Amino acid sequence: MAQSYKQKQVVRYYMCDRTNKLTLSMLVNVLLEISGQQSALLNRGEDFVRAMGLSWIIIHYDFEINRMPKAEETVEIETIATEYNKLFTYRDFYVRDKNNEVIITVKTTFALMDLEKRRMARLPEIVIAPYQAEFSKRIRRNVKAMPVEKESASQKIFNVSYFDIDSNNHVNNSRYINWALESLDEAFLSSHTIKKGVISFEKEVKENEIVTSYSNTYDDEELITAHHLSANGMTNCTATFVWDRNKKEG
Amino acid sequence: MAQSYKQKQVVRYYMCDRTNKLTLSMLVNVLLEISGQQSALLNRGEDFVRAMGLSWIIIHYDFEINRMPKAEETVEIETIATEYNKLFTYRDFYVRDKNNEVIITVKTTFALMDLEKRRMARLPEIVIAPYQAEFSKRIRRNVKAMPVEKESASQKIFNVSYFDIDSNNHVNNSRYINWALESLDEAFLSSHTIKKGVISFEKEVKENEIVTSYSNTYDDEELITAHHLSANGMTNCTATFVWDRNKKEG
Repeated sequence: MAQSYKQKQVVRYYMCDRTNKLTLSMLVNVLLEISGQQSALLNRGEDFVRAMGLSWIIIHYDFEINRMPKAEETVEIETIATEYNKLFTYRDFYVRDKNNEVIITVKTTFALMDLEKRRMARLPEIVIAPYQAEFSKRIRRNVKAMPVEKESASQKIFNVSYFDIDSNNHVNNSRYINWALESLDEAFLSSHTIKKGVISFEKEVKENEIVTSYSNTYDDEELITAHHLSANGMTNCTATFVWDRNKKEG
Repeated sequence: MAQSYKQKQVVRYYMCDRTNKLTLSMLVNVLLEISGQQSALLNRGEDFVRAMGLSWIIIHYDFEINRMPKAEETVEIETIATEYNKLFTYRDFYVRDKNNEVIITVKTTFALMDLEKRRMARLPEIVIAPYQAEFSKRIRRNVKAMPVEKESASQKIFNVSYFDIDSNNHVNNSRYINWALESLDEAFLSSHTIKKGVISFEKEVKENEIVTSYSNTYDDEELITAHHLSANGMTNCTATFVWDRNKKEG
């Protein structure tokens, strides 16, 4: 049986947006902290994989959000590495509130990056075994993000700055999320809430690159935004978010 | 006797820079979280002051850093509101490592902002009494940041973006720190460490403003950078940092 790991976390003010709700980028940071702790507990922490010249990277997020927790709220986060194949491991996260209700579910795809060659490496058995995930030959097809029509898209340009770069020597995945969202305007962001979405990371962004964040908004049966981040003519990240209009709080 | 409040904190990877050391902006976030917890414990939390139309803001930081803690390190943070006058309260923070050595000392000046008028308010006795800080008529002269010579300064321009704004409806003070530092280049930032500094916040930055971050570097007896942030021709923030060259880690 796959190993599960749980931990309580208090949402801090600095993790929140102007409405004192947890931001999506900080959610992702906290989730990775929890899976990192599980790895450390299984003696497969950052130091272990780094000594092999490898580092975990995120390939894909697929998330459903009933509600984002608010500042000072205590939540319990559970993570389970459910399945793996030669290249990927699939890890689920559940965020529960104090009534034990799942308020957020995130399904993720992790891979190992060869830090020298800057490309994906096969998962060594010695790294993956302790999680007791199931082996399956099948490589899952993740839900694809919707395409962006660049001609009609909103766009915003971002310079990669010093603090965007993490210990893997590339832009941290949580920064892409803010860049994608910040192509939407303030009026939209402050009156809407993400209820689900997918994010795919296709290529790393390095120091001194300039990133263009494109987005289209579709308001049909559901209110959807499609996102595309690119630097140097390459696609770095695609994402789709499904939104709810905020209700007035009573 | 002034009330002291202590709490242990684990430094998380997402609070760190590429070298897995705590960033100055995240240090500040964590310190304010701790003082916020003390306030909540004394029934003077965010909700209490906000119900009076007020919110705490930071006017000045003066810090000494022996070393920044690293990812996954546990530190203990102590805070004491030592003294106040009609406009300001002075609050000290001590960050200690597991050997109980003080690794960081931060002296701060807080004020209350009237959320409607967007200016400083007198400190009401009902807000300040529970901290048992000493009253003193004297308004301290904080150490001033060094002036910047704009003609010879490095400069970098930043657009205020959605996630820079906090629940006070202005740019969060921790963002100014990154903007100041990011006017320095990567070669400098990755080979130097801050050992002390002062930061003064003079005017709030609001949504849709464009901030220019100026800095001069002086390499005399000490290696010093002087910083100036401005938007719309106003001075928003000044800062001075004293740096050490990084030693090779053994």
